[in-house]
Amino acid sequence: MKEDPLSLLLKFLRFPTISTQSEHAEDLRHCAGWLANLLQSIGLHAEVRPTAGQPVVFARTPHDPAKRTVLIYGHYDVQPPDPLDLWETPPFDPTLRNDCIYARGATDNKGQILAHILGVGETLARIGTTPVNVVFLIEGEEEIGSPSLEAFLLAHRDELACDVICISDNGMAADFHPTLSYAMRGIAAMEVRVQGPSVDLHSGVYGGAVMNPATAAARLVASLHDADGRVAIPGFYDTVQPLADWERAAAAECPVTDADLLAQTGSPALFGEAGYSAVERIGARPTAEVNGIGGGYQGEGTKTVLPAKAFFKLTFRLVPTMEPDQILDLAEAHLRAQCPPGVTLEIERGHSGLPYFSDPTSPDGQAVQRALERVFGAKPSLYREGGSIPILTTFKEILGADSLLPALASPDCAAHSPNENFPVRNFHAGIALNQALLEEFAIVPARGIHGYKGDVPDLAKTARTV
Amino acid sequence: MKEDPLSLLLKFLRFPTISTQSEHAEDLRHCAGWLANLLQSIGLHAEVRPTAGQPVVFARTPHDPAKRTVLIYGHYDVQPPDPLDLWETPPFDPTLRNDCIYARGATDNKGQILAHILGVGETLARIGTTPVNVVFLIEGEEEIGSPSLEAFLLAHRDELACDVICISDNGMAADFHPTLSYAMRGIAAMEVRVQGPSVDLHSGVYGGAVMNPATAAARLVASLHDADGRVAIPGFYDTVQPLADWERAAAAECPVTDADLLAQTGSPALFGEAGYSAVERIGARPTAEVNGIGGGYQGEGTKTVLPAKAFFKLTFRLVPTMEPDQILDLAEAHLRAQCPPGVTLEIERGHSGLPYFSDPTSPDGQAVQRALERVFGAKPSLYREGGSIPILTTFKEILGADSLLPALASPDCAAHSPNENFPVRNFHAGIALNQALLEEFAIVPARGIHGYKGDVPDLAKTARTV
Repeated sequence: MKEDPLSLLLKFLRFPTISTQSEHAEDLRHCAGWLANLLQSIGLHAEVRPTAGQPVVFARTPHDPAKRTVLIYGHYDVQPPDPLDLWETPPFDPTLRNDCIYARGATDNKGQILAHILGVGETLARIGTTPVNVVFLIEGEEEIGSPSLEAFLLAHRDELACDVICISDNGMAADFHPTLSYAMRGIAAMEVRVQGPSVDLHSGVYGGAVMNPATAAARLVASLHDADGRVAIPGFYDTVQPLADWERAAAAECPVTDADLLAQTGSPALFGEAGYSAVERIGARPTAEVNGIGGGYQGEGTKTVLPAKAFFKLTFRLVPTMEPDQILDLAEAHLRAQCPPGVTLEIERGHSGLPYFSDPTSPDGQAVQRALERVFGAKPSLYREGGSIPILTTFKEILGADSLLPALASPDCAAHSPNENFPVRNFHAGIALNQALLEEFAIVPARGIHGYKGDVPDLAKTARTV
Repeated sequence: MKEDPLSLLLKFLRFPTISTQSEHAEDLRHCAGWLANLLQSIGLHAEVRPTAGQPVVFARTPHDPAKRTVLIYGHYDVQPPDPLDLWETPPFDPTLRNDCIYARGATDNKGQILAHILGVGETLARIGTTPVNVVFLIEGEEEIGSPSLEAFLLAHRDELACDVICISDNGMAADFHPTLSYAMRGIAAMEVRVQGPSVDLHSGVYGGAVMNPATAAARLVASLHDADGRVAIPGFYDTVQPLADWERAAAAECPVTDADLLAQTGSPALFGEAGYSAVERIGARPTAEVNGIGGGYQGEGTKTVLPAKAFFKLTFRLVPTMEPDQILDLAEAHLRAQCPPGVTLEIERGHSGLPYFSDPTSPDGQAVQRALERVFGAKPSLYREGGSIPILTTFKEILGADSLLPALASPDCAAHSPNENFPVRNFHAGIALNQALLEEFAIVPARGIHGYKGDVPDLAKTARTV
């Protein structure tokens, strides 16, 4: 007997698949096994494949060489849920309220990838086959930067050959508004550790004679931006592609208002780089963001210490044609040049990924726009996402296929935050959208086994045609 | 039969008199009783007097109205010993090694106050009287900020009337080097909480469109100093008394070298306000010190959040004639003026205390210098301490008497740290110093029952006469 989609989602969400915490390795393995069983049960061939890190769930419909092939990518790992005290209900005890499922991973990415899986299941149940060959690639390390996926793609390149890649790991421009994300920002991470005295000092006995590492860290962070919010690292903007006219027009038509962003963020006011709208600042402009800063006494009240050390964690969001390593080089040179005397810096680079751009006017882009319009009954918005899916560039390089990103997440889904949630209607729309997508992808003229081969267009010359 | 000084110190140190931990209340009471018995046994009238908190041990020699009166202040409570695993021998099982007594409280303050008690005992044993009237005031709440002492002073003002106050609860400038601390810095504490979004945001989805509170906190902290280490709050230095020529000369002669400070702090280099030596920066110049900063992700690796909030904790160390409330007003005005758009500030003020200055060239100051030179055989250093003892100002206000602070602690005594220790020779020197002090205080011309009444002198006009 077929299990209800919602009850399957609740089961999926109960696995605490936090990939950044090694004590959850077994939870990740269990979840991968559960997912492979589910894919098998709806009629796909499915396996859990090992990697150097967390396993990949790989599944496919029977291969018909006469059909185009669509690869659907997603991930079963999630972000850590902290701060736990801000969750209204426990993050791994999924709860239904206000017609939404609340749980870590509800939107990012378990709810969205499960909608695609169940959509394929419904197509198979309905017509016994699929209009295109479908390959599922569901990894367990997306939230830590997909360190094992490139090796997996290289090792299984033939099995993963496809015409187009479809991913729903992104947000709608407005509530239940059809949205095709055609660009994602890249990312480059770094942690900076500032070391001063060898131990925490008495701030009276020594204060004034040595550099305070918390002050030094603050000065370094402050040096990253000018007062108008523009990144002040020399050379940072040198490789930034300006927005095309059609993109500025699409951004202006985008149904995301400043009032929406204020409501979603709860910030007292919006703030950002002068000369750009908030939508453009998020999608089309690079940033330097502090993800964490710390040093010295963290408890209640006062402790008169001069801390021995401090740290800050940075991520830069990148837009075409910025290169992560080059940006980290510029940032490191800037921080070392700005470092005050009396402390030393230890700079560790984290994960990185290139920015991604996929022409929404390509044949497959138009197919996705048609599928979205069929399911949501409205013309989709074309949107540049602020987040990063670094693997998109790797897909393009290794599989030669473009990725298209029809959104299923709501704007206030709280991905990566406490009380992450996924509206039930988005889940059901996702199941329907997958079926429409398979049909629309099927009628795109085949351009060879690897599908549409267009490069990233020169943005300045590309006219918006849809 | 008279008990050996060292064996008395070992007994004193065995009481775990941790005033911040309520389970030690009985230990504090027992210790106070033991101390009163000891004072009684050497010939003083002694009592344990209750307060709203831990009892005060009060003792005095028979009052002779023809003699001056010296109040000796100290404390029998101690800091908690943690982290326990870093102690080589248990903190309340005093151990003699390397000619030092190792125990919590060995230096701070049991060893130092006991030396004064036994010094008075030796004088009484030797000549049957004391050259000055002596009053002991030994409290049990110094390590928690002396919350009951002001009420005690007000209630017993007449009994505590004195010409001068003598305290050894401070450090020598160098090992076994005679040192008179003649100033302590004041303190003013504040915590600043920076609020941006209502929850932690995805740094990709929203980064660029809102102010990051960690960036805002860093900008605010960075705004506190200029690049040369000078505090950049407008008006901060307006009420700072410049160092007198004799003070600069005393600081230059002080046997604390930059190498000593580098070794003690473990900092890669010294750093501080331009135009001042390290000793001057510590003792005679005010500071704005970050005791703690925090916001966003504190764990291992990367979490791509844009934090909802950040905080920093500040303490300002003050020198004459800065007023804590005025400095906090200036700091708050500065921070509010510097606050970037898109965040709000919540500022909470903490404890504060006035700076203290006691002219070492006063008749009593000269008496202490003579006593130090007699015992140590070298000219004492005149030293401004960087730490704060707010009770000194309360003594001055309520009893009208100045406090003089001849040091008995060694620079590496590890007060408040594991393996606190007190050199045996410092202990014996302290017993001798007390006897010399009583003699030297006796020959200072009396200026009335409350002793020397000079205000803090105008430093710029004061010549160093000793």
